Amino acid sequence: MPQPHSLTDQLVGFVLGQEKLPDAVLGESVRALVNWLGCALGGAEHEGTAAALAMSREFSGPATSTIIGHAIKLDAANAAFINCLASSLLSYDDTHLATITHPTGPVASVLLALSETQAITGLEFLEALAIGIEIECRLGNALIVPPAKAKLGWYVTGLTGGIAAALAGARALKLPHEQAMWAMGIAASQASGYRQTHGSMSIGLVPAHAARCALLAIRMAAHGFACSPNPLEARNGFFEVFSESANREALTSALGTHWEMQLNTYKPYPCGIVIHPAIDACLEIADVHDFDAAEIERIVARVSPACASLCDRPDPSNSYDAGVSLQHWIAASLLHRNAGIDELAPENIHSPAIASLRRKVRIESSEDVGRQSATVEVVLSDGRTLEREIVDCRGSISNPLTDQDLSRKFLAQSKVLPRASAEKLLAEAWRLGSSGNVAEFAHLAAR
Amino acid sequence: MPQPHSLTDQLVGFVLGQEKLPDAVLGESVRALVNWLGCALGGAEHEGTAAALAMSREFSGPATSTIIGHAIKLDAANAAFINCLASSLLSYDDTHLATITHPTGPVASVLLALSETQAITGLEFLEALAIGIEIECRLGNALIVPPAKAKLGWYVTGLTGGIAAALAGARALKLPHEQAMWAMGIAASQASGYRQTHGSMSIGLVPAHAARCALLAIRMAAHGFACSPNPLEARNGFFEVFSESANREALTSALGTHWEMQLNTYKPYPCGIVIHPAIDACLEIADVHDFDAAEIERIVARVSPACASLCDRPDPSNSYDAGVSLQHWIAASLLHRNAGIDELAPENIHSPAIASLRRKVRIESSEDVGRQSATVEVVLSDGRTLEREIVDCRGSISNPLTDQDLSRKFLAQSKVLPRASAEKLLAEAWRLGSSGNVAEFAHLAAR
Repeated sequence: MPQPHSLTDQLVGFVLGQEKLPDAVLGESVRALVNWLGCALGGAEHEGTAAALAMSREFSGPATSTIIGHAIKLDAANAAFINCLASSLLSYDDTHLATITHPTGPVASVLLALSETQAITGLEFLEALAIGIEIECRLGNALIVPPAKAKLGWYVTGLTGGIAAALAGARALKLPHEQAMWAMGIAASQASGYRQTHGSMSIGLVPAHAARCALLAIRMAAHGFACSPNPLEARNGFFEVFSESANREALTSALGTHWEMQLNTYKPYPCGIVIHPAIDACLEIADVHDFDAAEIERIVARVSPACASLCDRPDPSNSYDAGVSLQHWIAASLLHRNAGIDELAPENIHSPAIASLRRKVRIESSEDVGRQSATVEVVLSDGRTLEREIVDCRGSISNPLTDQDLSRKFLAQSKVLPRASAEKLLAEAWRLGSSGNVAEFAHLAAR
Repeated sequence: MPQPHSLTDQLVGFVLGQEKLPDAVLGESVRALVNWLGCALGGAEHEGTAAALAMSREFSGPATSTIIGHAIKLDAANAAFINCLASSLLSYDDTHLATITHPTGPVASVLLALSETQAITGLEFLEALAIGIEIECRLGNALIVPPAKAKLGWYVTGLTGGIAAALAGARALKLPHEQAMWAMGIAASQASGYRQTHGSMSIGLVPAHAARCALLAIRMAAHGFACSPNPLEARNGFFEVFSESANREALTSALGTHWEMQLNTYKPYPCGIVIHPAIDACLEIADVHDFDAAEIERIVARVSPACASLCDRPDPSNSYDAGVSLQHWIAASLLHRNAGIDELAPENIHSPAIASLRRKVRIESSEDVGRQSATVEVVLSDGRTLEREIVDCRGSISNPLTDQDLSRKFLAQSKVLPRASAEKLLAEAWRLGSSGNVAEFAHLAAR
């Protein structure tokens, strides 16, 4: 049995017991849902989703749960897997910037799939989603915020997403304390994923796998499959393998008072979050100045170390690679004065004009530059230098997307549905808190 | 695309292309199969298997594949999962001692489940099994053998088992090179598991999860789901996150000439492998000397650092915990002059006589003691000191179980089957190399 006041016990107690979440927290939970649902619709017909669906159809039990943007259902584990994958593949999902976690995918996918196997009200859904996101962000902090230190190679969403989704699902299904702890422990023992997957379909597979693991962990625990006590903090456990001197305070300090999930953000551009400030700078330079791309002699991008380390990809070969290529987005946004899904089309990735401009980018990594900041300097052949410094990029905490921005982003991604269906789904998402049964809402996301 | 001579490429080339395996290698492959199958029968009715089966029945697609020791089938992913779990739960499976890997479970489980979805001959099965075990042991070496260094907390079978099983399955199904690489890469990105799971049902879940991941990875890759090139050695990839300065030589040096799988061993006792030399010492002391347990004043066990670090558990609360308790096995084997499944029965775990003796054990960790060695000193109240040093414990490379030992171990674990059925299955296992279709063999393992 866990110690009465062990960290694991405290965490599970919070997840199952926290009542009356603040309105601002529930409001952020709805925003996360709207953003996630749009991303899942946007990825519904992606080639990666199609390949995974072909596999899932081979291995699905009774078809209980909606596949977003499709006319089929699958069992809850495969539905959670596919919906999370679709929402992740275009790198358009949300981000907790301190940890570069994309928290909503695993949690929302598991909750939506479960809502069609057991009745869950809209308020219960939003509360469980908020608490899942909260745990996921805090777990990331525990692995990363000093004195903790984790390798940059870990794909944090894969490490924390399954645990968070298992706990959120345990809350939504009202599992007893011990079973919730087992579900969390099983998911923790399956935490996985590294950033080498970036640049391929597998970038979306990491969170999707966490969702599948969480859903099966919940059902295993409900059937009495146990794990060792205190999986997070015990010797040879989760904290010890994934981090140096994990920051336990970050996990439990001011639980229920401070809400880390309010630091979650939504992307205006479909690419690696650490690239966004440089895109802002390029779009502003292109907006303010009149110049021809042929005049550009060189471009200097001063960016955060995380951006320089993960996104220095001067010659991307496909859309996944381009999605995390700083050079590609600088070149495309200067040339097209736009930064959307179209900039990942094959003809743009292989455009000679963009490729030529990518090669003119010099990346300077600076410890003084935060992840929401960047400076871009464009040097022209006539001697002019166009420079723009971004302190808080669009979509960051200090400069967040509005609800209207999120609705626009949702509708732009929902072309797989008839316009009227997409608008109805969007309206129901914004008022999910007053829904008596989430299953009805889930049906609206089907084609 | 991977580099033509990249490490990943070389490895996949070996797995798919290696022909005419030496007889000794195929012979060891059969021994591994017999040992694994017995363990899966032994764990078929375990409470952990029952709980996992309840979950798997909820989430199984078309029932193609045999559940060992049961009268039902499940889809191949769930069958691989359950069979590997059953074979792991009693800690009676095989061990590659240098890495404390239990290699056969994930590989054999995936191959057996696949053999009922696509025709595989006995020889193809044994070759794929041998190569899977080979990759698994070498991958473990690559993570652990100096200059490599990995945290002791990692459960190596969970890190390497999925990759090995994905590659073995890709060979058995004759996947093209690129798809085999994707299957391996997907499984690598899902590598997981830590030793905090020891002492609970989840000890068996780690390899079982690797088996499920591998089987789904194979089918995803076959449907065109891709991963980034060079998942093992690329920046932010498998080697980088799991190890310091991974030993790439250990993975590829003398591939096809030196067979690391011949260093695989089989356990004579159902408990953590690093405890075995101390059990040998206790059984020999009990065999040679005449004394009453009440006379024992204290026991000193000089053991390897791995044993001291993982198995210092003076007061185990359940069979999982007792399975990795050095104190429990020292006490039980001195008292019972035996070390088998019975020593894990609840009445023995909670026996006052054993508990009292456990508390008299002092553990001395010594860098000079290898994992196959130990010294036990029993000090009696009459002043006598009984001492025994074990250099190469039973079941170790220098002192291996014979084929007859393995057959006896198999039959002792196969009580879930009628004796005649167990004997038939055992005989067919020993001659699997001449079988035309493994599916028929798999049916024999059903109840």
